[in-house]
Amino acid sequence: MALVKTMEFKDGNLYLIDQRKLPRELSIFKCKDYKDVEFAIKDMVVRGAPAIGVAGAYGIVLAAQGCIGLSKEGFLNKMKESAEVIGNSRPTAVNLMWAVRRMEAVVEENKDKTNKEIYETLLNEAYIMEKEDLETNKSIARYGNEIIPEGATILTHCNTGALATVGYGTALGIIREAHYSGKNIRVFADETRPRLQGAKLTAWELVQEVIPATLIPDSVAPVLIRDGKIDVIIVGADRIASNGDTANKIGTYMLSQVAKDFNVPFYIAAPISTIDFGIDSGEQIVIEERDAKEITHINGARIAPEGINVYNPAFDVTPHQNITGIITEKGIIRSPYSVNLQFI
Amino acid sequence: MALVKTMEFKDGNLYLIDQRKLPRELSIFKCKDYKDVEFAIKDMVVRGAPAIGVAGAYGIVLAAQGCIGLSKEGFLNKMKESAEVIGNSRPTAVNLMWAVRRMEAVVEENKDKTNKEIYETLLNEAYIMEKEDLETNKSIARYGNEIIPEGATILTHCNTGALATVGYGTALGIIREAHYSGKNIRVFADETRPRLQGAKLTAWELVQEVIPATLIPDSVAPVLIRDGKIDVIIVGADRIASNGDTANKIGTYMLSQVAKDFNVPFYIAAPISTIDFGIDSGEQIVIEERDAKEITHINGARIAPEGINVYNPAFDVTPHQNITGIITEKGIIRSPYSVNLQFI
Repeated sequence: MALVKTMEFKDGNLYLIDQRKLPRELSIFKCKDYKDVEFAIKDMVVRGAPAIGVAGAYGIVLAAQGCIGLSKEGFLNKMKESAEVIGNSRPTAVNLMWAVRRMEAVVEENKDKTNKEIYETLLNEAYIMEKEDLETNKSIARYGNEIIPEGATILTHCNTGALATVGYGTALGIIREAHYSGKNIRVFADETRPRLQGAKLTAWELVQEVIPATLIPDSVAPVLIRDGKIDVIIVGADRIASNGDTANKIGTYMLSQVAKDFNVPFYIAAPISTIDFGIDSGEQIVIEERDAKEITHINGARIAPEGINVYNPAFDVTPHQNITGIITEKGIIRSPYSVNLQFI
Repeated sequence: MALVKTMEFKDGNLYLIDQRKLPRELSIFKCKDYKDVEFAIKDMVVRGAPAIGVAGAYGIVLAAQGCIGLSKEGFLNKMKESAEVIGNSRPTAVNLMWAVRRMEAVVEENKDKTNKEIYETLLNEAYIMEKEDLETNKSIARYGNEIIPEGATILTHCNTGALATVGYGTALGIIREAHYSGKNIRVFADETRPRLQGAKLTAWELVQEVIPATLIPDSVAPVLIRDGKIDVIIVGADRIASNGDTANKIGTYMLSQVAKDFNVPFYIAAPISTIDFGIDSGEQIVIEERDAKEITHINGARIAPEGINVYNPAFDVTPHQNITGIITEKGIIRSPYSVNLQFI
């Protein structure tokens, strides 16, 4: 088993696997300051809700590192500014905001200490978050494995693997766990237009670990669901409202709807940090619209004609009614979500 | 209005718009013999069920042209062989088989004439088919326009336009007709993975004619349907079974299923030659599987890792229960299809 290390903080720099270049090339993107981290998140050098949460925390660490020499007031102002910049680098995933707020709380609690002491406490907190993420994923994987039948064919969407997290993954972590526990599973991976994280990243992780897998265009999945070829669907989440409505990669809703029509179990796998108790339903989730070029160009070459309008939402919202269960590190939550999510 | 001329037979050659190169480049592919036509259909220089039907007919003309000098027996053998080759160049669209059989019948009826006379009769028959296709599409467009509300937002999939036919188009022909009749329509066009006919061809036709249109990834369409943003869906067909089950570009089924869940009208637009009365249901339709490279590579560059399996069906079957109506050149056929298709 090849262990993918999505990020590493070393010698005062954050090193990220450059996911824009996979699977062609395994190269490392070096972040020397928080502006580099902002760019890395925006441009999707690093992506996946849990991964950008921890990367964001290290972004705050880099911001602190860069202004240790300032006055206390200058330092605190800079911390505020960098939290703002990092927190807004992508709008939909709540983990990023959650991570930034946790780092801000550390600054607040320690504001009477020296800048260097605050920096060291922040660095320690980011280390803890990194370790927690891996433990969280292992726990999600163990709970999730309970609902995977022997010999199951599992459908997944986008990339929710080691690359989307600090390691192991959420939905793909469950698939790993099922595979290594000897269940003889098979995987169908949606290519996931427009950015093709399924083709580029999920397929890469599956091939690395020799898990039997087939790559399909997104629109093939509904036919497989209808035809009884899929036993269970597991996807990740970027934000879960307190009623269970879930924002995830565009294409998720379509799978959930057809799964519901044909009684195929449809699960979300996500850490509790993905739940946004501040919102009642999916209607309040801001859906990020990304650059039209993701649709009009491929590998830098124009494929669609000049002058065509484009609508390119990065996510969609799956209503809680379509979700069989939400697999978290503390167990599987089932309907009614507005009640059961409160008790985790 | 720019009139797109998908094909032209001139001076003993068949000239095709090379659809592999659009929208980057409007170039012409010259077929000098029937083997060139076989290649053009297989490699999708020309595509779209009605277009490959007529191109196939001209392929038979080119075969006849190339063996006028042979003995009668040699000539007839060559005609048989070329009909076989052309007829099998793509398996799912029934129009191709229909066109080839119609040309074979011409040979059979005229087999006592000279080779040159047979050739001339075949050429005339292909001309007639070409003209018929355009008239058929205009008629489909007029019937189809009746179901388009004023100010409608129309969703379509793949390319069913002038490029998919001899001219004007089927589903896209209806959209043209609605636009030019002043209904202030708007179009959402699915990009249509894997070959992106929506992004490359449909968007190109819509931009050429300044019809208000927005290009979307395929998996965005179900969200728009759910959210009430689509008034009517119209797509083409590659083969319609006698119970109304319809094979069309992969991704069609998904649209029909979500449309049914949310009561959005879902129409098929196709000439009667698309109906295969020889089969009872969609289960008997052979679904062409295309090269894995359509998924693993883009513009010749590998995007998915080596070693990943791929499933790449070109079409899916939409069950007749999901279809609001089938718009043909003789009117709109509605359920029960197994009865009503018999009476057209």
